[in-house]
Amino acid sequence: MIILNGGSSSGKSGIARCLQAVLPDPWLAFGCDSFIDALPAKIQASDEGIVFAANGEVSVGADFRALEAAWMDGVAAMARAGARVIIDDVFLGGAASQQRWLQTLGGLAVLWVGVRCESAVAAGREVARGDRIQGMAAAQADAVHEGVCYDLEVDTTQTESLACARTIAAHVSWSPDLPGLVSPGLWSSMWTGGWTALWRAARGCRR
Amino acid sequence: MIILNGGSSSGKSGIARCLQAVLPDPWLAFGCDSFIDALPAKIQASDEGIVFAANGEVSVGADFRALEAAWMDGVAAMARAGARVIIDDVFLGGAASQQRWLQTLGGLAVLWVGVRCESAVAAGREVARGDRIQGMAAAQADAVHEGVCYDLEVDTTQTESLACARTIAAHVSWSPDLPGLVSPGLWSSMWTGGWTALWRAARGCRR
Amino acid sequence: MIILNGGSSSGKSGIARCLQAVLPDPWLAFGCDSFIDALPAKIQASDEGIVFAANGEVSVGADFRALEAAWMDGVAAMARAGARVIIDDVFLGGAASQQRWLQTLGGLAVLWVGVRCESAVAAGREVARGDRIQGMAAAQADAVHEGVCYDLEVDTTQTESLACARTIAAHVSWSPDLPGLVSPGLWSSMWTGGWTALWRAARGCRR
Amino acid sequence: MIILNGGSSSGKSGIARCLQAVLPDPWLAFGCDSFIDALPAKIQASDEGIVFAANGEVSVGADFRALEAAWMDGVAAMARAGARVIIDDVFLGGAASQQRWLQTLGGLAVLWVGVRCESAVAAGREVARGDRIQGMAAAQADAVHEGVCYDLEVDTTQTESLACARTIAAHVSWSPDLPGLVSPGLWSSMWTGGWTALWRAARGCRR
Repeated sequence: MIILNGGSSSGKSGIARCLQAVLPDPWLAFGCDSFIDALPAKIQASDEGIVFAANGEVSVGADFRALEAAWMDGVAAMARAGARVIIDDVFLGGAASQQRWLQTLGGLAVLWVGVRCESAVAAGREVARGDRIQGMAAAQADAVHEGVCYDLEVDTTQTESLACARTIAAHVSWSPDLPGLVSPGLWSSMWTGGWTALWRAARGCRR
Repeated sequence: MIILNGGSSSGKSGIARCLQAVLPDPWLAFGCDSFIDALPAKIQASDEGIVFAANGEVSVGADFRALEAAWMDGVAAMARAGARVIIDDVFLGGAASQQRWLQTLGGLAVLWVGVRCESAVAAGREVARGDRIQGMAAAQADAVHEGVCYDLEVDTTQTESLACARTIAAHVSWSPDLPGLVSPGLWSSMWTGGWTALWRAARGCRR
Repeated sequence: MIILNGGSSSGKSGIARCLQAVLPDPWLAFGCDSFIDALPAKIQASDEGIVFAANGEVSVGADFRALEAAWMDGVAAMARAGARVIIDDVFLGGAASQQRWLQTLGGLAVLWVGVRCESAVAAGREVARGDRIQGMAAAQADAVHEGVCYDLEVDTTQTESLACARTIAAHVSWSPDLPGLVSPGLWSSMWTGGWTALWRAARGCRR
Repeated sequence: MIILNGGSSSGKSGIARCLQAVLPDPWLAFGCDSFIDALPAKIQASDEGIVFAANGEVSVGADFRALEAAWMDGVAAMARAGARVIIDDVFLGGAASQQRWLQTLGGLAVLWVGVRCESAVAAGREVARGDRIQGMAAAQADAVHEGVCYDLEVDTTQTESLACARTIAAHVSWSPDLPGLVSPGLWSSMWTGGWTALWRAARGCRR
């Protein structure tokens, strides 16, 4: 699996499509947008669901979190069933969002990619797209990366999506798969037993 | 879970959105269209992927089938994780498509719904939508139901999507969940041991 | 020209696409949606522009009206230049909207078509589409027809878009073109001189 | 009026949306894409209409040209009626396309803007968009500028859409309107009488 994390209008979806084009095998690409499209319309008007404020702030409630957790389980199952999967997500909760994915993915080999874009540039691209609430790009540009640990970071401020995808694809080819799948039960206990700290330390993450 | 099966332009997606509106709990809705959107663009030009012929015929190859199987596993996992899920699908293989879902869903409670629409009416709606290849609706109108076994059938020829959704929703409320989940291993052996026939007989399906 | 007027979710766009399919000559189809897409995003947040209230009410201001008037002039010019043009519009002002078109079109042969749909049915289709603000269909179903004078009315409550289009197309083939174009100046004076009343009387319009 | 000309995936539409955001007055934005959307679906399968070949080549026939000419007349009429209009177009015919616009616009003040993008970069963005036929960007990158005369050129290879829009907007504010509208008849005779050459010479165009 490849997980791309970045703020709104940072270029994640474009990179995902380029990855699908340059990687020799067929990869499925899903994003938090496709998950949101699957939600009932009424959940978007609800505090329990997801609320897009006029200033670009996004807040989510309990119903959203519950369905999102099930969706993440589904994504993990696709990967376990042998599909190559690219996810583009916006870690609204920063490190906490990554931890949710890690617990869900239970030992699957994942290439974690941070997609950076300077706040002002992302805000400009938001204007050019014309279909996003103004302010999301700026609100998310840095916040989504807070405390998140990556194998690789790309920056779309000066680099084209296709070039970013090629950099990522190069890592895919030599990325050593984890030795095997850990059972979800064992994984869960490893996790609560401090494995997060080990995983992060092994990758040289700050803090 | 609710699985809606019907030909192109029979009104499945509209019914799914209406179900999301009328059912009291939040349901996720995915469709074969959202799966196809997740595929690499290049797989659509390939015999191993999915080919939409100019006359409305759709043919799929080995790569498509492999990714679709993984996607179906993912959908099943979402449901097992507690999400209420609506799928709208086009059973290009008729009964064989249903059997693939049954094997994948391994004991999950599913309401099987056939979405019918007279071929000529569906073909007319295809023209009105303007974004589909002409001929798909007619080619699929009857073929996708061949040998498929339903709990319930609706017909959009004369009935609005919202009314169809209300009929379906009434069945959801009193549909007795299966007593519990069968382990995938047991399920698989039940299956190869002839359980399909039992399941179909219990529902009074015409072969 | 063919002008289709009807409330949101009454099926105008679908009829327009069917007309393009069944009419032997190539017709251009534009709609108020395509005009709104051409507006700056910022005008949608402004009282001078267009405001879509959460309850489905739509209100427009001076900037919107000025640009819309210019757009209508453009549509008239396309028709005068020889293009066959289908417009689907929502006459938020009822008879006043029609009068604006009549003044703009200055003697062009137009087939005026009312697209009716029972309010409850249109509201249901709005739910099924999933991309419209709930309440627009009900708010507009009757209001947009108030005082408007048609050559022909179709009702999508029970009749498919394609069948409606065939009915309309039959009128197009024998619709006698007006004898010739009246110059915009003469037209304008005819108009202020009471021609509206004559035009309406000739068509047997109520009041 | 502002006319943006550039190849597919050069960034014209994004610049148009940014112009709408940064210019103080409300501007309408139309593009060749919105014109193509207005065409009957069947005209896209026809040699008389528009054909998108699998290799990215685009060819147009007589029906397309006739409707396009009427659409251009409509755009001119919108501008004459007082609307500020931004057009983003792809001059498939290079200088001949510009000449068609010039004849149609008959003396309207126009800011001609070339939108350049290095062929390889545009081709990469085409992959990232995922909704265009591969090859259009490369086929059009240079061809659409051949012999075309601009007031201003921007290059999106290294410059963001918003920055390009700001550069263009600066020219809009001090661009002296032509002294007045020339009557279409006079214009037409000026035109056939060699005015093109004068117009081009006055702008210092090569050849």
